Amino acid sequence: MLTVYSEDCRLHHGRAELNEGQLVPCFENPSRTDIVLDRLKAVDLGEIVAPRDFGVVPLKRVHDAGFVDFLAECWDLWTAQGRDWDAIPFTFGKRGMRDDRIPKDIDGRIAYYAMDAGTPLTAGTWKAATASANCALTAAEQVAGGLKSAFAACRPPGHHASIDYYGGYCFLNNAAIAAQALRDNGAQRVSLLDVDYHHGNGTQSIFYDRADVQFLSLHADPEVEYPYFLGHADETGSGAGEGFNHNFPLPWGTDWERWSAALEDACRRIQGYRPDVLVVSLGLDTFEQDPISKFTLSSDRYPLVGARLAALKVPTVFVLEGGYAVDDLGVNAVNVLTGFEDA
Amino acid sequence: MLTVYSEDCRLHHGRAELNEGQLVPCFENPSRTDIVLDRLKAVDLGEIVAPRDFGVVPLKRVHDAGFVDFLAECWDLWTAQGRDWDAIPFTFGKRGMRDDRIPKDIDGRIAYYAMDAGTPLTAGTWKAATASANCALTAAEQVAGGLKSAFAACRPPGHHASIDYYGGYCFLNNAAIAAQALRDNGAQRVSLLDVDYHHGNGTQSIFYDRADVQFLSLHADPEVEYPYFLGHADETGSGAGEGFNHNFPLPWGTDWERWSAALEDACRRIQGYRPDVLVVSLGLDTFEQDPISKFTLSSDRYPLVGARLAALKVPTVFVLEGGYAVDDLGVNAVNVLTGFEDA
Ligand SMILES: [Zn+2]
Ligand SMILES: [Zn+2]
Repeated sequence: MLTVYSEDCRLHHGRAELNEGQLVPCFENPSRTDIVLDRLKAVDLGEIVAPRDFGVVPLKRVHDAGFVDFLAECWDLWTAQGRDWDAIPFTFGKRGMRDDRIPKDIDGRIAYYAMDAGTPLTAGTWKAATASANCALTAAEQVAGGLKSAFAACRPPGHHASIDYYGGYCFLNNAAIAAQALRDNGAQRVSLLDVDYHHGNGTQSIFYDRADVQFLSLHADPEVEYPYFLGHADETGSGAGEGFNHNFPLPWGTDWERWSAALEDACRRIQGYRPDVLVVSLGLDTFEQDPISKFTLSSDRYPLVGARLAALKVPTVFVLEGGYAVDDLGVNAVNVLTGFEDA
Repeated sequence: MLTVYSEDCRLHHGRAELNEGQLVPCFENPSRTDIVLDRLKAVDLGEIVAPRDFGVVPLKRVHDAGFVDFLAECWDLWTAQGRDWDAIPFTFGKRGMRDDRIPKDIDGRIAYYAMDAGTPLTAGTWKAATASANCALTAAEQVAGGLKSAFAACRPPGHHASIDYYGGYCFLNNAAIAAQALRDNGAQRVSLLDVDYHHGNGTQSIFYDRADVQFLSLHADPEVEYPYFLGHADETGSGAGEGFNHNFPLPWGTDWERWSAALEDACRRIQGYRPDVLVVSLGLDTFEQDPISKFTLSSDRYPLVGARLAALKVPTVFVLEGGYAVDDLGVNAVNVLTGFEDA
């Protein structure tokens, strides 16, 4: 399987994130893709290529233009205030407050465009986030061009980034950008399956009123887990998108038996949709030893995930999302890919 | 002038707040009311009494019952997770996300009920916040009983706390609770004037659709200042409250000339409303040396504020809000009160 990766993805490296009331070292850091790359090479999965640069146009196909422009200039505006440390907002707006007036100064704009205090924006974030999106776009382009599958080793991840806000370690929604590019390159129907431990709120929001991209997400119940305010089972899409959004919220402690049953349900819905192409938001924080998650999947289950997806017999773009048990992230991610290849 | 103060207000003492991307010592701390009390005694303004305890009923007259219950139990739920440090949420929900499902675990609930990461909730917060509200209620009761004026030396402050969320150093909206109690004790019309540097978003939201409490706020333009997403001039009330909400957003650098012209405008609107009683949200962060604010009022202007309010000839309840130039906070706050007394 072809892998797309950019060294520029390492340029996003936050010093600390707010977690449980304290500033702690960032769980989402460059060592994550380092170890995935090491494992890819160790098993010799296939060629590893650099992405090509698609510019901002495909980013603005799914994101608000003002939001993308803000991400590009945020660091410069932040440091222009004499700050040489990571940008973390402290306020975010709240229900009932206005969203029709975007503040003018940097602290107000970051309050408008961010959804949490756990996602530091750094000197290299824009370059890394665009490189990450380019990895997804390049993988999508290769699959659109005839490859059976490709893997975008993206970081920062993307699935929490919505139309016009970022958070949950995500800035640009790599998987959504790839899905839209596939549509723009001729695919009539795209299925986007999110197997990260957390609900893909950004992806859901981007495609919520559309029938041409089916979204399915297996994740910890938002009643007890980030992002808390999206991901319930009764979110089924709106307007033309009604019936094309499928959430599978699962309780803390979900094991392989329960998780794989939900995967089976999702796969049947994908088969019923008959997509031209499948995009997989591949989070590995369902792993039993993940430091911020509470599912119990073991490493030897991930090849079964890949095999089940291969059985769909649809061209597939894998896009790396979360997974914070760094020592095992390489094995777990690559296990999905080898399971897919060997099926 | 009678002052109401409780030593329990000192029990809220956060270790750090997220500010400009860093955890810094809390600007809102017990030394604020210490210095106000010292100054009150130095000028011998009048008797200083402890509040009586009104219980939770008057709090729930303006706040959501579930929100009040959450504030009461938050610390116990937080520490039950093995955490012995201040509770600060890292995520808050965002526009377009759901607000009809309140998460079940402590991290989700605090995400639902908090509006920023600048307001640590500590072991003593509930006791201090209720003591602070009781100060405002006691002062209101004294004025309802015939006193010309009274001063509630509240902390934590209150005006950012809304119907069902807290933030901006505020947990319970002391001024709104006092205004509602005055209504419940027979006042037909209450004017609530907020002269804090920041917009009183919580107070506005609480009374936005009501004609029986007129709200007026002089503050830094939300285009460039916290809370960013409320406080524009075009927010004039809704439904029955249309025309009873008056915002005076002012630019950074506003001096006495400009500020006092806005005060004059507000006072004329109060006169036109003919309230039975006036509640003043008395923030002193309009001071030229305030560390987090950008207006340029000097200490010798504050007696003029008090004198102008006295000229309204309406029974008046002063409720302390912000003000973070601690060394001068006592002089500035008491200057307003002596200006009122001496007029
Ligand atoms: Zn995740
Ligand atoms: Zn203030």
